[in-house]
Formats: sequence, C-alpha cells, structure tokens
Amino acid sequence: MDARGLLKEHITKLASLTPAEFDYFFSHFKPLSFKKGQVIIREGDKVDNEYFVVSGCLKTFFINDDVKMHILQFAMPTWWASDYNALYTQTKATVNLDCITDVELLSLSNVDREKLCREIHQVEYFFRWRTNGGYVAAHKRLLSFMNNDAKTRYEELMKLYPLLYNLVPKHLIAAYLGVSRETLSRLYNSHKNVM
Amino acid sequence: MDARGLLKEHITKLASLTPAEFDYFFSHFKPLSFKKGQVIIREGDKVDNEYFVVSGCLKTFFINDDVKMHILQFAMPTWWASDYNALYTQTKATVNLDCITDVELLSLSNVDREKLCREIHQVEYFFRWRTNGGYVAAHKRLLSFMNNDAKTRYEELMKLYPLLYNLVPKHLIAAYLGVSRETLSRLYNSHKNVM
Repeated sequence: MDARGLLKEHITKLASLTPAEFDYFFSHFKPLSFKKGQVIIREGDKVDNEYFVVSGCLKTFFINDDVKMHILQFAMPTWWASDYNALYTQTKATVNLDCITDVELLSLSNVDREKLCREIHQVEYFFRWRTNGGYVAAHKRLLSFMNNDAKTRYEELMKLYPLLYNLVPKHLIAAYLGVSRETLSRLYNSHKNVM
Repeated sequence: MDARGLLKEHITKLASLTPAEFDYFFSHFKPLSFKKGQVIIREGDKVDNEYFVVSGCLKTFFINDDVKMHILQFAMPTWWASDYNALYTQTKATVNLDCITDVELLSLSNVDREKLCREIHQVEYFFRWRTNGGYVAAHKRLLSFMNNDAKTRYEELMKLYPLLYNLVPKHLIAAYLGVSRETLSRLYNSHKNVM
C-alpha cells in the first residue's frame, strides 16, 4: 500500500473524514526517506515535526551517564514517532530518534497539526484518541517497570509488535526491556513454549 | 474557590468557552465527597468516570504479588484521576484509586466527555491537550525509571507537587519513587541543601 493509502486506512479506524477533507489533511504531510542508521532527532535539537511510519523501523532512545542505551519506543509502520516532550512543550530534545532499517515516513509539523485540528473537528478527535492510546500504553509500561517485571514487559512488547523479534537486533530488544541478552533468550524460549 | 470556579479557571488556561458553553459543560459534572481512606476505584471494577480534584489528595496504586504497594500517581487539586486504561478501553480496572485525605471531586462520565467533545470543539481541544500533558509526564517518569535514577524522580515529583512532602505520609512518597524510607530522607536532605 502507498503512503497515502496507509495514512487513510489508519485515520479511518478512528475518524470520519470526507474525501475532500482527507485530501486537504494529506496535503500537509511531507514524504521523507532515510537510510538505516540515519539520525532524525538528536538530543538538544529543536523539534518541529512528528513522523508517521510508512515502512521500516525506528527507535527513540537515550544514552545515560554510564553509556548504557535505553530504548523508549520502537516505531513500526502506522506508528507515530517524535520527541513528544520537546514537540509539545517547545523545549530541546531529550531523546534521540534514528533508523533501525531504511525507512519511509510522512512528516507533519506541529504548526500544521494545530492548524488542521482547528479547521477540521474530526482531525482533533483523531489526535485526541491517538494520544489517549499513547498515554495508556506509557502507563502500562510504567507499571511493569515499577513492578520490575521483565516477563510482562516482554509479553506486552510481543503483543504490540508481533514481528519485532525477527526484524530488530536482539541487543535493541534487550535495551527496550532493560534486561541482558541472556534474560531475553530465556524470556523468548519460555514464551514460545506456551504459544 | 468553589468547585465551579476552580474548574473554570482550569479549563480557561487551555480553551476558550463562552459563559453559556461553560455552564453547559459544568452541568455534566457531579460533585462528590469522600472521607480519608475511602476507595473510589478497586482493581476489577468497571470504570465509567474520571474525577477532577477540587480539594484533598488521592492516589492510584497497585499491590504486587509480594504485597508491595506501587504508586502510579498522586492527584492534588486541579488534577484529574481515574484508571484511564480501564476508562478508555472499557476493560476492568487494573489499579486502585483511594483517598489520602478527605476529598471533594467533580465526576465526569466517559459518555458525557465524548458527548461534550462532539458538541463543543473547544472541549475536544481541551481534552486533547490535557492528555498530551499526561503523555509527556508519563514518558518523563518512564525515562527516569529506565535510568533507575531516584534523584531525578524525586526532583520531578517535587516540581510537580511542591507541597506534597508536608501533606502526604512519607511511606507513600517512597512507594511513588520506588525507594526505601531511608533513601527518601537522604534525597530530601540533599535537595534542601541545594535550594
């Protein structure tokens, strides 16, 4: 499916736009391509855009003082990615966004999102429910971190991104879960056995 | 300030409602009072409402298999509280909500929120930006949990709720931060010394 078709299908799951409204909405998105390893947002950057993933896989991450990488989020096709803290509060980026594979994206600016939300009520409805979903997902992840439960984190990750285990290098999955490579293998094998 | 005035001031920070729109909006809220220790949402409940805090302090929490309490959130005046996972996805509650002090609340049902969002575009705008704020706060907290950085979690908590240290029993603050009482005292003393 092309970028336009994918975005249309994605929006239609939540909101009802007329064909003319969708055309207008889509005209504010800018198609972008990046190569594996390219950096889209770097800590300290000004952040003006968010990205709808058309193909490929991204990660948002930060490196702590001990030079350990923590992965906040993966982004697969039909997911959105940015440093939302920086984007929403107009502060400098505190995380990085880069490409695990070659990717195609649709970029939407903060300014255009707000304009579209003002102009088309259903667009505002769409973005409200998109964020509601993200809020709930962030709280679920927080609960499993508070409970220090790597098994639940692993199972939630596989539910969110069933194809991830074969697509993404294992050290990145371990960095998302906050566990060692050895623990990841153990979780993978015990998960397989109950499937 | 009375409940109506507090809600009006809170909404006005983000959205512009006419006096007639605000009256209509406010007519969907139901005032409620609870005593210290009363439970508002219990794990396993169906959740139909969210709550705007007028006075007092609430906590959302869960107890893990080791009977250890984890606090997901405090809610002070002008904050909103519910089990948003259960409320938004119409599933059973996975956390509890109870009263740290006597509280006064304004209750809004899921059904009425959606109706108001459809009827008044500025109400949809308000709730979108309220959730955007919650999403960013949840991700910040997640980052500090991933980084296992109790000092940052403490400083973020004090920034969010400057009055909390004197209002809330110390063992609850420790349960929010995921640290012992002794670590909390150390963080409090080192924080005081740099103020």
